Amino acid sequence: MQQFSYDHLYRFTYDMLLKIGCPEADAQLAAKVLLSADLRGVDSHGVARLSGYVRLWEKGRINAAPKLRVSYETPSTAVVDGDGGLGLVVAPFAMKVAMEKAKQVGTGWVSVKNSNHYGIAGYHAMLALTQDMIGISMTNASPLVAPTFSKERLLGTNPISVAIPANEEPAFVLDMATTTAANGKLEMLQRKGQDTPSGWVQDKSGNPTTSANGVKDGGALLPLGGDREHGSHKGYGLGAVVDILSAVLSGANYGPWVPPFVAFLDPLPNLVGEGIGHFFGAMRVDAFRPAEEFKGHMDQWIRRFRSAEPTPGHEKVVIPGDPERELELLRKKEGIPLLDPVIQDLTELGKKFGVSF
Amino acid sequence: MQQFSYDHLYRFTYDMLLKIGCPEADAQLAAKVLLSADLRGVDSHGVARLSGYVRLWEKGRINAAPKLRVSYETPSTAVVDGDGGLGLVVAPFAMKVAMEKAKQVGTGWVSVKNSNHYGIAGYHAMLALTQDMIGISMTNASPLVAPTFSKERLLGTNPISVAIPANEEPAFVLDMATTTAANGKLEMLQRKGQDTPSGWVQDKSGNPTTSANGVKDGGALLPLGGDREHGSHKGYGLGAVVDILSAVLSGANYGPWVPPFVAFLDPLPNLVGEGIGHFFGAMRVDAFRPAEEFKGHMDQWIRRFRSAEPTPGHEKVVIPGDPERELELLRKKEGIPLLDPVIQDLTELGKKFGVSF
Repeated sequence: MQQFSYDHLYRFTYDMLLKIGCPEADAQLAAKVLLSADLRGVDSHGVARLSGYVRLWEKGRINAAPKLRVSYETPSTAVVDGDGGLGLVVAPFAMKVAMEKAKQVGTGWVSVKNSNHYGIAGYHAMLALTQDMIGISMTNASPLVAPTFSKERLLGTNPISVAIPANEEPAFVLDMATTTAANGKLEMLQRKGQDTPSGWVQDKSGNPTTSANGVKDGGALLPLGGDREHGSHKGYGLGAVVDILSAVLSGANYGPWVPPFVAFLDPLPNLVGEGIGHFFGAMRVDAFRPAEEFKGHMDQWIRRFRSAEPTPGHEKVVIPGDPERELELLRKKEGIPLLDPVIQDLTELGKKFGVSF
Repeated sequence: MQQFSYDHLYRFTYDMLLKIGCPEADAQLAAKVLLSADLRGVDSHGVARLSGYVRLWEKGRINAAPKLRVSYETPSTAVVDGDGGLGLVVAPFAMKVAMEKAKQVGTGWVSVKNSNHYGIAGYHAMLALTQDMIGISMTNASPLVAPTFSKERLLGTNPISVAIPANEEPAFVLDMATTTAANGKLEMLQRKGQDTPSGWVQDKSGNPTTSANGVKDGGALLPLGGDREHGSHKGYGLGAVVDILSAVLSGANYGPWVPPFVAFLDPLPNLVGEGIGHFFGAMRVDAFRPAEEFKGHMDQWIRRFRSAEPTPGHEKVVIPGDPERELELLRKKEGIPLLDPVIQDLTELGKKFGVSF
C-alpha cells in the first residue's frame, strides 16, 4: 500500500488515455470521472480499472474516439448512441442531454446504448446538483449476480444513484449496488483470507456459501437481501428495473448478454442489442416547488435524520453521501492509497505504452 | 378464516364509503383500489384496513369529498393537492395527470401532497400499462422503520412499484416495501406465536430482535438488508428517496412527521407539510424506441429469466408480478379469504353504519 497524489494519478490516467487515441477533452473528462471513484472510496471502480479499459480497447471493444449522438428524442426523453465509446465519456454527455431537457420541460430522461462501463454512478447523478436538479443515474453491468432462485448469473451489480440538492447541508447522494455487497468487497476478503458474511454469495451449485472465492469459482453475487426470507426478491427486482431502463429501453444488451468487462471473456454470440446500457434522469426541483423552499426542507430532513438517537455502539445516523464526501476531502489532501498489485499493474501498463508511472 | 366473493366485499366497501360521504364515483374507485390489494394477496392493505380509514374520517383526518387539483405544473411535471382525500382516490387522479403529460412530452412526473394512504403501490403503477407506458408509483407512510444505526422510527415502509409492459408475456410488475419485511408479515407471525427471521425487527433499545412483537413493543421495522453488514444502508437510502420525492418535493409531511395511519395516534405538533405524500411517473415506451420493438425485447427478457436454471429445491425464477397475477385469477374465481378478526371488525363496522356485512 502506498499513497499517490490526485494530480499524479490524474496525469498518468490522462496520458494513458491519450496513448490509446482519446481526444484531449475526452481524456481529461474520462480521467476525472475515473478518479472520482478513488477519491470517494469506491476503489474497485477507479484507477485500478484503467488497465481493464485498455485491454478492452486492445480487443477492439472500445472506440477511443466515438461520435456521440442523440439517436431519438421527444421533449422530455432521448436515446443516446455511445458509438462504442468509454462510458466515462458517454455518460456525462447523456446526463447533459437530460439536464438540457429538464431546463426546457421540467425533467429529462435519457437511455443509452452502445456504451461501456461508466465508473461510479454517483458522479453522473451529482452533475445535476449545480443546477438545482435531482440527478438519477443507473447502469447495467457484466452478469455476476444470480436472481433469487437462479443458479445462473443473469444480472450485473446494477447500481442506482440519486443526488438531491440541499441548501446549507451538503447534498443527499445515494450511490448503491443492488446487491448485498459489491465485488470489490469480496476481493478485499479474498486478500485477507477471510470468509464473507451470510447472504453475499452463492456457490456454483446455487447453494449459499461464505467463501470469498465463491464468485471466482463459478458462483454468483446475491441481490440485496441475500435470500428470499430476507427480501432478495426485492434486490433482484431493483436490479431488473435498472437493467430494463438502461438496456431494453435504449436497445443495449441486457441480462446475461451484457458484454463482460474482462477482456479475456468474449461477448455471447447472438447479442440482443448494442454495448451496455445506462439510464439518466434530471428533475428541476423548481418544476415542483420553489427551489429555496425545497432546499430548506431538505436541510430540515437531513438534520432530523442526522440527529436521531443512535443504536447502542453507534455514533449517529449517516446521511447517504456523507462518508464519500468526507473521504474525498481527506484523499484530496493526503493522497489516494493504492494496493501493491494495483501499483504493479499500472507500472507495467505505463511501461508498455511509454508512460512513466 | 372464511372465503368471500369479490362482489360481496366490493359492495360492502362501496356502501360503507357512501355512508361516510364519498361521491358515488369516488366510492366505486376507492373500493376497486382497496380490493385490488386483497385480490393480489397484499391482505394487510385491503379490506382489512377499511375500518382504519373510517376511524380516520371520524377524527376529521380524511375529507370524503375532496376537490382534487393540480396546484403547480410544467410540461412534464405537476404537484397535485389531494385536499385531505382518500389516497385511494387521489392517487389514480395524480397518475392520470402523469399519463396525460407523458402523452404530450414523453414522460410525466407528479408529486402529491395532502393525501392519505393509497392502498397498494402496484395498482397505480399498472394504470400506465394499457397505454404502453412504464408506470412508477411510490408513497411515504407512517413512521415504523428505523434507518441504519437509528433507535428512532423515522421512515415508513415506503414502497416502490414499477410496471413495465411486455407483448405476449404478462407485464413485469415490481411492488415492494423498502423494508426487509412488511408489517403484515409480522402480524401473521404474532398470531402463530412464531419468531421472525433475523434482520426484520429491532427492539425499543435499538438492538436486533426476533420477536414478532418487536414493533408493537416500541421497536422498529428494519430497512431492506436488515443490518449494515447485509446492506441495510441501501434499504434505508431507498426508503429515504421515496420519502423525499413523495413529500419534500410536493410539500407533504416527511420522515417522522408523516401522520400515523392509526387514528388513536395524533399527528405530531408543528407539522412540516400537508398530509402524506406520493410520487408517480409515466414514461411512454415509444418516447425511447418503437413500442413493438420494446415489448418484443421485454418478452425475451422475461422468458430468459423465467427459464433460468433454478437453485436446488426451487422450481423456477419468478418474474416480479407473477405470483400476484396468479393469485388474482384464483381469488376472483374462488373468493378472498378473510381472517376471523377481520370478519368481526367488518361486521361491527357495518352494524354501526347500518350496512349489512
